[in-house]
Amino acid sequence: MALTTIGFDADDTLWHSESHFVFTTKRFCDLVAPWSTAQEKQHEDRADRTELDAAITDRIEHQLIEIERRNLQLLGYGAKAFTLSMIETAIEVSDGQVPASALKEILHWGHELLKHPVELIDGVEETLRTLMQSFNLLLITKGDLLHQESKIAQSGISQMFSGIDILSNKTVDSYQNLLQQHGIPASDFLMVGNSVRSDVLPVLQLGGQAVHVPYHVTWALEEEEVLDQPPANFHTCSHIGELPDLVTSLAIRGLPQ
Amino acid sequence: MALTTIGFDADDTLWHSESHFVFTTKRFCDLVAPWSTAQEKQHEDRADRTELDAAITDRIEHQLIEIERRNLQLLGYGAKAFTLSMIETAIEVSDGQVPASALKEILHWGHELLKHPVELIDGVEETLRTLMQSFNLLLITKGDLLHQESKIAQSGISQMFSGIDILSNKTVDSYQNLLQQHGIPASDFLMVGNSVRSDVLPVLQLGGQAVHVPYHVTWALEEEEVLDQPPANFHTCSHIGELPDLVTSLAIRGLPQ
Repeated sequence: MALTTIGFDADDTLWHSESHFVFTTKRFCDLVAPWSTAQEKQHEDRADRTELDAAITDRIEHQLIEIERRNLQLLGYGAKAFTLSMIETAIEVSDGQVPASALKEILHWGHELLKHPVELIDGVEETLRTLMQSFNLLLITKGDLLHQESKIAQSGISQMFSGIDILSNKTVDSYQNLLQQHGIPASDFLMVGNSVRSDVLPVLQLGGQAVHVPYHVTWALEEEEVLDQPPANFHTCSHIGELPDLVTSLAIRGLPQ
Repeated sequence: MALTTIGFDADDTLWHSESHFVFTTKRFCDLVAPWSTAQEKQHEDRADRTELDAAITDRIEHQLIEIERRNLQLLGYGAKAFTLSMIETAIEVSDGQVPASALKEILHWGHELLKHPVELIDGVEETLRTLMQSFNLLLITKGDLLHQESKIAQSGISQMFSGIDILSNKTVDSYQNLLQQHGIPASDFLMVGNSVRSDVLPVLQLGGQAVHVPYHVTWALEEEEVLDQPPANFHTCSHIGELPDLVTSLAIRGLPQ
C-alpha cells in the first residue's frame, strides 16, 4: 500500500502531439472547403463571407470528428488512422468532387505527422530525473506501434523508464493486464496523463491513483465530462513540473501512521 | 541446450492473410488501369488488347510495390499502411486523374481487409494442441497492433500460447529483446514461419533454430533469396502438420549422448 510505481502517458503528457493534429485539421478544412457541398446551401443563407467560410470549415471539422469516431474501433488511434479518416471525409463532404491533387496533399500531411520531430514538453526531463530516484517509472502509451516506438527512441528519455508499454487502447482491462505483467498492485500505482478518459478513469476504477495534467488542447474523442465529485485518489497538476511536490505529499500521506 | 520454446509467426503461418492482399491488389490494378498514364504510351506499342491490359496492370502492381517499399520505414506493416500506399499509387500512376469515387472504393477495401474474418490454416489447431503438451508456445507477429490483437482474439487459439508478442518489425534485435524478456536462451528456441526474411534468418543469426513453412504466396517485400547452403539449424516443412514429427526428431537429436 505504498506508492512504488508511476506510469506516464506519452503524447501530450511528455511531448507535444495534439497541437500537430490541430494544425493539420485546420489546413485540412481550408483545403477541402472549396469542394464542400455545404458551399451552395450556405450561400443562400448567409451574406457575410467570413461567417460563411467559418460555418463551412466548422461543418467539415465536425464531419471529420464523426468519421474518426465511426472508424475508431476498426482503425484505432494514431496518424495513419487520422490520414485515412481525412481522406474519407474529403470525399464525403465533397460528394466525390474533391480532386486527387487535394488528396495527395492530405497523404503528404499524414507523412509529415509521422515524421514530425519529438519535442518534449517543458519540465519533463527534470521531473523524470527527480522521480526516478525514488520510483519505478513506466511509459504507457497507446496508438500506432511503429510511430510510438520511433518517438520513444527519438525522445532521448527512454532510459529513465523501467518499462515501456504500447497499447492499442487504454481501458480498465488493459491497465489491469499491464499491472499484472509487471507484478504491481494497483494500490501502489499512480498514473499521470492529459486524458481523463484514458489516463485517469480506468486507473481510479482499479484502485490506483491518477494525476491529470491537462494539455492546452484535447482531441474531441478524448474529451470527458469533468468529475463532479473527484475521489480522494484523483489529483490534478496544471504543469508536469508540479508533480514531484505532489507525489512527495502523497507518499507522506501514504506512510503508516 | 534443449528445445523448450517454439515461436509461431501468425499471418500466413497460423491463418490466411496474404491471399486477401493478393486479391485486393488484383482488384486495385483493374480499378486504376483506365486512368493509368501508361495507357496511351502502351497503345502505340501494342496491338493486342489483352496483352496491353496485362502490361498496364503489371506496371501498376510494380509501382504499388515500389511505393510500399518507399513507405515501409514510415508506415510499417499492415492493412492501414497498404491502403495508404494504394491511394498514393492510384494518384501517382494516373498523374492525379483518378476520381475520388475510385479512391473511396480503395478505402472501402482497406476496411474490408481489417474486418476480414480469421481463417486458420488447415492443421494449425491440432499441431498446436500436440506441441503445447511438451513445449512453451509463443505467438510472435508483426504489423498493426490493433488489427493483430483483433485477429488473435478472433482466432480461438490464443489460450494455447504462453506469451503473445506483437512487434513493429522482426529483426535480430527485436528477437533478442523478446527472448531476453521471456528469459529464453536462443539455443532453446525454435521459430516457425512462412517468411525466410522475418521468421528464419534473424533467429538463425542468434543461434536459434528455425522452420520455414512456405505459404502459397509471398509478399514481394518478404521475398528472400533461397539459402544456398542451409545451416544445420534451418529446417523446412511443406505443411504445418509435419511440425510435430520434425520437432520430435530435433528434440531426440538434441538429447545428451
